[in-house]
Amino acid sequence: MSALSGVGVGRGIAVAKVLRMPEPLAPPSDEPLEADAAAEHERVREALAAVAADLDARAAAAGGDAQAVLEAASLMAQDPAILDDVRTRLDGGANAERATWDAYAAFRDMLTAMGGYMAERATDLDDVAQRVVARLRGVPAPGVPVSDEPFILVARDLAPADTATLDLDKTLALVTQDGGPTSHTAILARSKSLPAVVGVVGLLAAAADGQRAIVDAKAGTVVLDPDDASVAAARAEREMRLAAASAPVTPGALADGTPVPLMANVGSAKDAPAAVEAGAEGVGLFRTEFLFLGASTAPTVEQQTAAYTDVLRAFPGKKVVVRVLDAGADKPLAFLNDAHEENPALGLRGIRALRASEQILRDQLTALAAAQEATDADLFVMAPMIADREETEYFVRLGREMGLRSVGAMAEVPSIAVLADQVLEVADFVSIGTNDLTQYTMAADRQLGSVAALQDPWHPAVLRLVKMLGDAGAAAGKPVGVCGEAAADPALAVVLVGLGVTSLSMSASAIADVRAELLTVTREEARERAARALAASSAAAARAAAAAR
Amino acid sequence: MSALSGVGVGRGIAVAKVLRMPEPLAPPSDEPLEADAAAEHERVREALAAVAADLDARAAAAGGDAQAVLEAASLMAQDPAILDDVRTRLDGGANAERATWDAYAAFRDMLTAMGGYMAERATDLDDVAQRVVARLRGVPAPGVPVSDEPFILVARDLAPADTATLDLDKTLALVTQDGGPTSHTAILARSKSLPAVVGVVGLLAAAADGQRAIVDAKAGTVVLDPDDASVAAARAEREMRLAAASAPVTPGALADGTPVPLMANVGSAKDAPAAVEAGAEGVGLFRTEFLFLGASTAPTVEQQTAAYTDVLRAFPGKKVVVRVLDAGADKPLAFLNDAHEENPALGLRGIRALRASEQILRDQLTALAAAQEATDADLFVMAPMIADREETEYFVRLGREMGLRSVGAMAEVPSIAVLADQVLEVADFVSIGTNDLTQYTMAADRQLGSVAALQDPWHPAVLRLVKMLGDAGAAAGKPVGVCGEAAADPALAVVLVGLGVTSLSMSASAIADVRAELLTVTREEARERAARALAASSAAAARAAAAAR
Repeated sequence: MSALSGVGVGRGIAVAKVLRMPEPLAPPSDEPLEADAAAEHERVREALAAVAADLDARAAAAGGDAQAVLEAASLMAQDPAILDDVRTRLDGGANAERATWDAYAAFRDMLTAMGGYMAERATDLDDVAQRVVARLRGVPAPGVPVSDEPFILVARDLAPADTATLDLDKTLALVTQDGGPTSHTAILARSKSLPAVVGVVGLLAAAADGQRAIVDAKAGTVVLDPDDASVAAARAEREMRLAAASAPVTPGALADGTPVPLMANVGSAKDAPAAVEAGAEGVGLFRTEFLFLGASTAPTVEQQTAAYTDVLRAFPGKKVVVRVLDAGADKPLAFLNDAHEENPALGLRGIRALRASEQILRDQLTALAAAQEATDADLFVMAPMIADREETEYFVRLGREMGLRSVGAMAEVPSIAVLADQVLEVADFVSIGTNDLTQYTMAADRQLGSVAALQDPWHPAVLRLVKMLGDAGAAAGKPVGVCGEAAADPALAVVLVGLGVTSLSMSASAIADVRAELLTVTREEARERAARALAASSAAAARAAAAAR
Repeated sequence: MSALSGVGVGRGIAVAKVLRMPEPLAPPSDEPLEADAAAEHERVREALAAVAADLDARAAAAGGDAQAVLEAASLMAQDPAILDDVRTRLDGGANAERATWDAYAAFRDMLTAMGGYMAERATDLDDVAQRVVARLRGVPAPGVPVSDEPFILVARDLAPADTATLDLDKTLALVTQDGGPTSHTAILARSKSLPAVVGVVGLLAAAADGQRAIVDAKAGTVVLDPDDASVAAARAEREMRLAAASAPVTPGALADGTPVPLMANVGSAKDAPAAVEAGAEGVGLFRTEFLFLGASTAPTVEQQTAAYTDVLRAFPGKKVVVRVLDAGADKPLAFLNDAHEENPALGLRGIRALRASEQILRDQLTALAAAQEATDADLFVMAPMIADREETEYFVRLGREMGLRSVGAMAEVPSIAVLADQVLEVADFVSIGTNDLTQYTMAADRQLGSVAALQDPWHPAVLRLVKMLGDAGAAAGKPVGVCGEAAADPALAVVLVGLGVTSLSMSASAIADVRAELLTVTREEARERAARALAASSAAAARAAAAAR
């Protein structure tokens, strides 16, 4: 029996056998081609066709979002330009594996150079290239393993393509050596209510296929080869937590009755039923990108009004916080900003891009005001990437001019927290986007594995900024919510409330866990935990300090 | 007579005629080729050769850093791959200008895709392409204008290639419509002691070639067609300021005698004489990148010891603050980090990259300790991108182990300011890099023109973070310096001192102006100006509030 620890995601416990994700293929050799180029070309053609067929079959079986990801991968495998390039490389003397590998690498570099959305797709090509080379080599394709019995998936880290193909019926928990609490693995775990422990140092050296393990997300531990008593205790604890999580749906509140409204993050009207079913007391973050991304022109006011009205109708009498279009060079839109930027996260995005194309913003606010009038929902509208009072004044003025009743700001840029007193004089409310706030405060890209250790919303620097916002909100008598991933971490949710946050918004699947945890502490206890976390000198120390009794 | 205003750089005044930088060439038409492809190919070949010869001649005349930039551009013009690509495009039916333009664009995209240093060179290709197309079109090449008499250069913004070729003997001032106080134009102006006003709204619509103008950098104004009385007043003011700036070299101090050591930023030993001559009381930022960039392996301990000893010898008995290697994916080094990162400014850089390759850091600290023992300079060593107490402890422990006496942190990441009390318990000193601190606090790329308005170290959010560091330094009794561009702005230098900054480091050329300005205020007045700036709600308001009497 050996125990490892990392960062837990959620509160679940799982007991099952370990299944390891295979490591990626070794790159092909540079040995020159010894076989006949035409015959090898045919062999590559067959491998490409077989991989495409396999991906199509998996796509049909997967359905939903995963289907689209897999179908796109299949199309990449069948791209005739790839096969032409492979032939050129074979004729130049490269062996079949090397020619295939390099042809995909060249294609990937081209996509990367295009930037933005195409560049994001570039990593999917690596997955396709690995599959084709594995087939040429006669070894199993890397990627998510398949099993007939339930398992705990152990991996270095999970890529989006991996998670799209993961058999969630069989996966009881996710454990990764890399990645942090905002990694793709953690986001998947939260959205599917899977227990996970990420950032487990020494995991890959210790865990073997078929080994029994206990994953305790709340404790952030992985026990390998547990004895029978530990397994029995884990199973009992699991039953207890499941019972707590399936407790009756009540409004979010602390043990002393202090209300803490629990809201849902939704991406479109189709997410509304799940939110209502989970007992969401409204919507804390309604993202509007779905109407804009992939389009060549902005949607009309009429189209937008219809879409917003659809969502607002699902929450009569309840609060719905809508974020206006959040795009920039990282999500390029020809009609907004598709410039090449060296650091798109620090570029012309959010309110900055909207201000530079004000008609798009005016149209969106017009449509939101029309939806406000057409429904009984209590509409709040906020803008992303607001940095200071001047930008807040601009957005609030425009919102009021269009007839909106509640106009506020997302807190993502560190300056807004430092200037919270000034901003809350003007804004009707603030909602904290913890992922971006953490990214900028720590100057650590939230998508980049090599700096994952810094991307932790438990970091005392982030908590201090949240406190500045909470204090300013209390002084101004205005709500300060959190709508980032941090709100979905039950222990952190308590600390956030202790720092002055007045409502929490998360994926609908996380609400039950957070509700259960909030009910275990009074306001005074939440403040004590927050004070202990604030005084810590690292994210891990803050997490431990908050948990201490 | 009409007056425009912007952000002034320095304290100088200039009176001269306006010379406008030509706007870039219109892109070539898509008209199909009507002439003979072989003849057009020959015409392009001649144009490339002529541009290369012109660039070579300018390179030889320029000397210094500009020579290297121009020689690289000449090599780009002569690249045979370009000419081959042009031929392919001509054969495909493109006209000569379009074929040339697209061939360079394809080359640029390729460089951009390579990322890092090569990507930075990509914009230089645009300049070469413009020159070749101008020659094909029979129009003057865009770029810096040439004049026999002194002039005020008016431009949209200046690129590095422009400033490399600017005739500084004739240029009396720089005025740009775009750009902020950290733009390339502003940095050039400071390093050459040229008065400049940047970010002047409406400039290009108002200023015409040959018009007389007064540029007052201290006031941040540009007066077009001034009357004779204004010109006389400006000339008198100019004499007064020149007299003040050439006042005897004394240690930096406020009017009440409070010492504020004025130090120089230096990039290598060859910058030392200019720093000593300007009366620098030591070195506030000695960058060590020059030893590492462009090399395929890290320099040896012996090579580094020799280089550091050279610089330290120039400052016997004085403080020299050395920053250990500051590199990452934006300045890729094969032996440190040359990964492709989506946002290199938020990536594995500074102390993060060094920690991942600890032997490089250990070697550098060993060499610095040897140089400390071999000289009489008072050596301070700091690491870039330190985010919190844990990273500070790591660096301080390693520095002490190697025998260094004073070990500290650069303050660039917002978290270090928010946690200043914790960090200053551990660090011997802190030095604020205002450019990066502003970039991260405002989430606005310091290199990106479209978000230039946010990249202003006068922003109250940045000033509040500086105050947190100043307060923590005072509480711990430890020095807090500034070594970013902000220290070179005389009015801002006063505010920084008022916020608790204890020393200022800048380009040697800026020291005289800052010395003169500090001598005009007492400590109490500096604190009052700082308090007014802190209470402002925008950078412009802070600048105005500090200036108010």
